[in-house]
Amino acid sequence: MKITTFIGSSRKDSNSELLADFVTKDIDHQKIHVRDLFIQPIHDLRHDKDGFQVVNDDYDTVIKAFLESDLLIFSTPIYWYSMSGIMKNMIDRLSHAIRDTRFPQLKEYLQSVEAIVIAVGGDKPTIKGLPLIQQFHYIFDFLHIRFSTYILGEGNRPGDILQDQQALAQANLINQRLKSLK
Amino acid sequence: MKITTFIGSSRKDSNSELLADFVTKDIDHQKIHVRDLFIQPIHDLRHDKDGFQVVNDDYDTVIKAFLESDLLIFSTPIYWYSMSGIMKNMIDRLSHAIRDTRFPQLKEYLQSVEAIVIAVGGDKPTIKGLPLIQQFHYIFDFLHIRFSTYILGEGNRPGDILQDQQALAQANLINQRLKSLK
Amino acid sequence: MKITTFIGSSRKDSNSELLADFVTKDIDHQKIHVRDLFIQPIHDLRHDKDGFQVVNDDYDTVIKAFLESDLLIFSTPIYWYSMSGIMKNMIDRLSHAIRDTRFPQLKEYLQSVEAIVIAVGGDKPTIKGLPLIQQFHYIFDFLHIRFSTYILGEGNRPGDILQDQQALAQANLINQRLKSLK
Amino acid sequence: MKITTFIGSSRKDSNSELLADFVTKDIDHQKIHVRDLFIQPIHDLRHDKDGFQVVNDDYDTVIKAFLESDLLIFSTPIYWYSMSGIMKNMIDRLSHAIRDTRFPQLKEYLQSVEAIVIAVGGDKPTIKGLPLIQQFHYIFDFLHIRFSTYILGEGNRPGDILQDQQALAQANLINQRLKSLK
Repeated sequence: MKITTFIGSSRKDSNSELLADFVTKDIDHQKIHVRDLFIQPIHDLRHDKDGFQVVNDDYDTVIKAFLESDLLIFSTPIYWYSMSGIMKNMIDRLSHAIRDTRFPQLKEYLQSVEAIVIAVGGDKPTIKGLPLIQQFHYIFDFLHIRFSTYILGEGNRPGDILQDQQALAQANLINQRLKSLK
Repeated sequence: MKITTFIGSSRKDSNSELLADFVTKDIDHQKIHVRDLFIQPIHDLRHDKDGFQVVNDDYDTVIKAFLESDLLIFSTPIYWYSMSGIMKNMIDRLSHAIRDTRFPQLKEYLQSVEAIVIAVGGDKPTIKGLPLIQQFHYIFDFLHIRFSTYILGEGNRPGDILQDQQALAQANLINQRLKSLK
Repeated sequence: MKITTFIGSSRKDSNSELLADFVTKDIDHQKIHVRDLFIQPIHDLRHDKDGFQVVNDDYDTVIKAFLESDLLIFSTPIYWYSMSGIMKNMIDRLSHAIRDTRFPQLKEYLQSVEAIVIAVGGDKPTIKGLPLIQQFHYIFDFLHIRFSTYILGEGNRPGDILQDQQALAQANLINQRLKSLK
Repeated sequence: MKITTFIGSSRKDSNSELLADFVTKDIDHQKIHVRDLFIQPIHDLRHDKDGFQVVNDDYDTVIKAFLESDLLIFSTPIYWYSMSGIMKNMIDRLSHAIRDTRFPQLKEYLQSVEAIVIAVGGDKPTIKGLPLIQQFHYIFDFLHIRFSTYILGEGNRPGDILQDQQALAQANLINQRLKSLK
């Protein structure tokens, strides 16, 4: 099982990355820090007569990771009750990617993929993070990606997540399942 | 009443901008196209020993608009069931702005402001746009901004919004109220 | 177009009923006050070896109204952020009704039906009523009923709804559409 | 710590009851099966000149359990994406109870109480059960009850919940915490 984790935080050693690391502990996987990629915001040209234009940035890295993975883990801090802006820009570009003639297999390929969401925030994440989970559900539903599970963890200061016993237990459970699938 | 509309679309003459224009029709206001501003993503340094650093971009334009307005209208296309990435990056930067020593009055000022959200999407926006509305509610609640109303409109192709009678009726009603407040 | 409105309030002249009356003004329809029916709570016997048993109450009135209608309007006060308990008991019994051998056509018939939801509450209904709307969406989605629109109105004391301009405008718009369909 | 679990299912040995039993395993507590109580639906007389009238049913049992408990566990099957109708009728009656002059201390007492929600359903409960959780959040928020945690479990046929490893792990974690608090 090939796994890619996308890290949406703007800071090193973020709580969301720490929690993602528990999920993939001792499991072979690649990790992509979205903050290290140069990704242009979407320019919505779906209805333009010339359609989408080639964008000169690092987004192909994202598409290639999608096409190489059986499991995509989206790990994001909860900024203002939703995913970070840099991760959102990455998601937005999917509108272009699934129409990109250089990757005609992408849309169909995604239908065989599993997704997990990990989100960590400081203001009642298990309640106020629910709209974010609903959005990811709609996103995956649109793409026919199987949304197997998610974790909403609590943390503000670096390392806080280590105190969230429920989030750690959920991460450990997923980790065990993923190991058994290897 | 001073009004600023933030337009979150990536394209000209977007449905969300059209709908916002109905809301502000014949009313003095300023309009800011987020896509025309250079806004860096947030770098979360809340817990860094040196705190946030000055960022060299156009974000001061946003802060100044906040500080000059009685009503903020956030108009965004619904991209993947939430606000556009460029608008999200703008929102994310609030974490820095409300701690920016150059604008010590910002946080308190916002408590006197009213906000309206306009969002237009193509995939059942009055249902699938609800998590977005809940998020804006949490955002405004955190900042003690008064969230007076919102419109969820339907549109995909340019101009589609002109067929959404309910959205237009809501826009018209808000427009009348704003006019009466002048 | 045959219309049935279900009134879920426990009191006469409730705000939710008033608002429903605007929607059906000058349009032929039947109105069912759920509080006047004797409806037993569901006894979930889906997995019992003998299955569901005949229940001796007024629920057939509900089923017959379903089978006679092209449009179902569910009008409920928002009690504790969801529909009233008496309306919920009515909804719960659908689990039995769609398996009731006396009405084998019910499940298929519902797929041709349109539904509208009207809900009125006192505590920020346009925000805190959203989970209720999402639940109705899931209910209708499960039954393949077309959920055309909804109104979330504000009101606490009897008659309050008459002050909610937006809700009245929405009701009027629906009323016009329904009249044009006659 | 005094604990009351309210069981909202209509059937014996329901999945939601099984899961609640894991949470309270080897811990002293009382269990109330809502289906065994005779509870009248609310008659909303908040704005009637004579106010609420004494209702002749078993609701005092509910109020007394509230007043004797430090922790309230609401365990409900997910019927049509929200709590069961019988549990909803029990919740609705709170509008009367917090105004009942025979229990003037109720409203204040509830502010010291903790609540846990357990909900089990068959149709993607970790996604489609989220509006229910949001509603309980609003309910507890209104009453200033501390909503410490919740479990959304999956199950349809009797006993299914025993296959939901994540729900069981969460139940076990809560059980350990409650034991440590004794």
